[in-house]
Amino acid sequence: MASAAADIARRAKAAFDAAQASLPGGAEADAARSEALLLIRDKLQAHEAEVRDANAKDMQAANAAVEAGSLSRSLVARLDLFSKPGKWAELLAGLAGVAALPSPLDHCTYSRRLADATPAAGALDLYRVTCPIGVLLCIFEARPEVVVNIASLAIKSGNAAILKGGRESAHTAAVLTRLVAEALGGSRLPRDLVQSVQSRDEVAALLNEDRFVDLVIPRGGNELVRAIQRDARMPVMGHADGLCAIYVHDDADEATTVAAVVDAKTDYCAACNAVETLLLQRSHLSGSLWPALATALLDAGVELRCDPDSLAALGSLASSRSQQVKAATEEDYETEFLELTLAVKTVEGVAEAVSHINSHGSHHTDAIFCAPLAALKASPAPSEHPAAAQFTRAVASANVFVNASTRFADGFRYGFGTEVGISTGRTHARGPVGLEGLVIYKYIARAEGPGPQTAGAFGPEKRAWAHTEIERRYPRF
Amino acid sequence: MASAAADIARRAKAAFDAAQASLPGGAEADAARSEALLLIRDKLQAHEAEVRDANAKDMQAANAAVEAGSLSRSLVARLDLFSKPGKWAELLAGLAGVAALPSPLDHCTYSRRLADATPAAGALDLYRVTCPIGVLLCIFEARPEVVVNIASLAIKSGNAAILKGGRESAHTAAVLTRLVAEALGGSRLPRDLVQSVQSRDEVAALLNEDRFVDLVIPRGGNELVRAIQRDARMPVMGHADGLCAIYVHDDADEATTVAAVVDAKTDYCAACNAVETLLLQRSHLSGSLWPALATALLDAGVELRCDPDSLAALGSLASSRSQQVKAATEEDYETEFLELTLAVKTVEGVAEAVSHINSHGSHHTDAIFCAPLAALKASPAPSEHPAAAQFTRAVASANVFVNASTRFADGFRYGFGTEVGISTGRTHARGPVGLEGLVIYKYIARAEGPGPQTAGAFGPEKRAWAHTEIERRYPRF
Repeated sequence: MASAAADIARRAKAAFDAAQASLPGGAEADAARSEALLLIRDKLQAHEAEVRDANAKDMQAANAAVEAGSLSRSLVARLDLFSKPGKWAELLAGLAGVAALPSPLDHCTYSRRLADATPAAGALDLYRVTCPIGVLLCIFEARPEVVVNIASLAIKSGNAAILKGGRESAHTAAVLTRLVAEALGGSRLPRDLVQSVQSRDEVAALLNEDRFVDLVIPRGGNELVRAIQRDARMPVMGHADGLCAIYVHDDADEATTVAAVVDAKTDYCAACNAVETLLLQRSHLSGSLWPALATALLDAGVELRCDPDSLAALGSLASSRSQQVKAATEEDYETEFLELTLAVKTVEGVAEAVSHINSHGSHHTDAIFCAPLAALKASPAPSEHPAAAQFTRAVASANVFVNASTRFADGFRYGFGTEVGISTGRTHARGPVGLEGLVIYKYIARAEGPGPQTAGAFGPEKRAWAHTEIERRYPRF
Repeated sequence: MASAAADIARRAKAAFDAAQASLPGGAEADAARSEALLLIRDKLQAHEAEVRDANAKDMQAANAAVEAGSLSRSLVARLDLFSKPGKWAELLAGLAGVAALPSPLDHCTYSRRLADATPAAGALDLYRVTCPIGVLLCIFEARPEVVVNIASLAIKSGNAAILKGGRESAHTAAVLTRLVAEALGGSRLPRDLVQSVQSRDEVAALLNEDRFVDLVIPRGGNELVRAIQRDARMPVMGHADGLCAIYVHDDADEATTVAAVVDAKTDYCAACNAVETLLLQRSHLSGSLWPALATALLDAGVELRCDPDSLAALGSLASSRSQQVKAATEEDYETEFLELTLAVKTVEGVAEAVSHINSHGSHHTDAIFCAPLAALKASPAPSEHPAAAQFTRAVASANVFVNASTRFADGFRYGFGTEVGISTGRTHARGPVGLEGLVIYKYIARAEGPGPQTAGAFGPEKRAWAHTEIERRYPRF
């Protein structure tokens, strides 16, 4: 198994190197990548029947597993590529959409003249230019369209990808990957740029192949992601948990807050950006906001796990809805429920809210609700509510929102076109990760003229460093 | 040990959180950080005698170890803070230098209006703003001034740091760290923002503290860095090896190449950016460049380990200098010599050179030597030599140079002021890492007006995404 996985990894790196060597870079290379994405679209379109057959097989097995009680019905819905009107067409359109995105490659992000020309030697210039990372290992859940989404992002960003989908979608994923590879075979890109593996053992072996695999992007359940973070010998980008909180400041607008908290909890409660903890500033225990918010949540079917003070403040509401209103345990504040359950805690103010979030949360998405700017009486009017300023600065999460539902944390909603996942790490890329998160840069120094470019020539009373700004454009592009 | 290390890590994170909570961000926070750096400078200046005493103790122990044959004399020179004129003054000036650098924080690098205002709700805007990473664990060699360099970079970039220097500099490092902490105690920053540990056991324990430590930056020997890369539960930024290569293309200018290759090998052969492998295009075996280059290298005291073809091409030179000219083994092409030894190999052209470098090198710094642009006869004149274009694109290293010595790969030489180290990784930051490599970003979404900002409000025939460009400036800054 280890050697088969090593062979796949070696071929992925070889395909990456071959693409880097054969494509000229710049607009022409981007055109070749986009062209390959359209070839993949055409290939999938032409072989829809084959994909349908494979998807039907996966669905049949999944339905049997649902009957046997070993699989949830919601997973079956996610497996299904064809029943929902427009899903297949959207998948095909997504390929053209990624092809049309601006290339994240070959951007010059720093440039300096290191040294001016001398009688002996020409000028020496430095450029920092974005380039692909290399080989990505992407592990994801049983949604077969993700094969195509991730392949398209990897191709557009100049990377190679090894894909491993959930085993329930194995037939569909296998056909899709084969069609992608066939389409690549007819393009200017190497066929092995996108490959797939089927088993967890293969993934385990690949996590050791740090000579060939440069980055692992796991999506899926907490335990899977943690295991990969623990075992991988190369960097891992993703998130294990989505323990998001909303803090309601004393001057929060009631209608704004109620609408957004209900959305954050109920719009899609199994999502990683759904809210799990509500932090109430103490003054709300005696105002109208908390009862109004609690009623709206209860009416939407949410179960509330309240600390003693917020529970007491609900009075008869708590007793009349005792099936849905319960006392919280300490564990509730560290739980990603992923269902219609919300932990509620009273805090004294923004400082305690920040401290709770930084120590209990998962650094995914956290929001503050406070008075809108126009309602502030301060003169001159501040550019930001002081509590929002403190919250957005001090909460160490990837996404920090003011007066908006946590559900907005998403690559499509952010305007990235699509995303490979959401990262809660502190390095490389955080939050929703789109094409920009799949590139890195290299420094290119170049001397155009003849003459010695030696470090030993610099020093006191010798050649001097210039470090002057030059055009932020690498000459080739 | 584990619990003592956990306590240090916990206090580092608490100090980081406290600084984030108490400083307002923007120019005022940067002023507080720069002010703290100047307080550190003043404190060190006022306690020079104490540092001298500690440094003398380390020197005494080191000199005894040299006498006993257990330590190299070059290490003693690196320990010594006071004998070399200007070294101590430079250390103090470096603090003011970092204080004067532009802040890497609070830069807005992406901004979008996610949705326009509606009658029901105001506009929703998204900003991506740079912020510190958190707690850095920095492990470095026995050069006591690095304590101050790294502390200053960590402070300026808003991070907390835990420092572990080489044990030979333990007395000096302990006094320097204590003085830094004392100066911080008199600043607007928390005292625990910079702490130190003394033992490898403490480092080993800290590598497990991924709740508190966000990034490890190891500097030093290959084995140390590899062990940390293997054991750390958090991201690691650095490089284990510096196996740099120079490829000499068929049309390379002789004088340019000879000067730069000699510089790359001999300017400081123990450095990670010194060249270790020379790749000669075959045509040079019958030209004047290779004998001239070999002679210059031999005269500079370099030992050449040649493949059969390049060895044969040297003819009588090889036999007359047989102490310095030897046959290469396969292992020589995978060895970071760190001394005056150079492996030489004949290749057919740029493609083979790229392939050798990508498979044998360490992705640190590699250079091509080829004809200067002005010498190219092509019309229209290209913006880059075709071989250089292929080389800079296809070599997957952090630094890729055209007609310049590999020794230029250095943060100061790149114009960053200083560096925490050089990274050969493929994510986050590569090459020399300065302040920019010590920050990450967060996404801040904000709705200024009242009204519901709910994800469920968007969709066909509902609220529409705008995704329009807005000013790339977060309103608070």
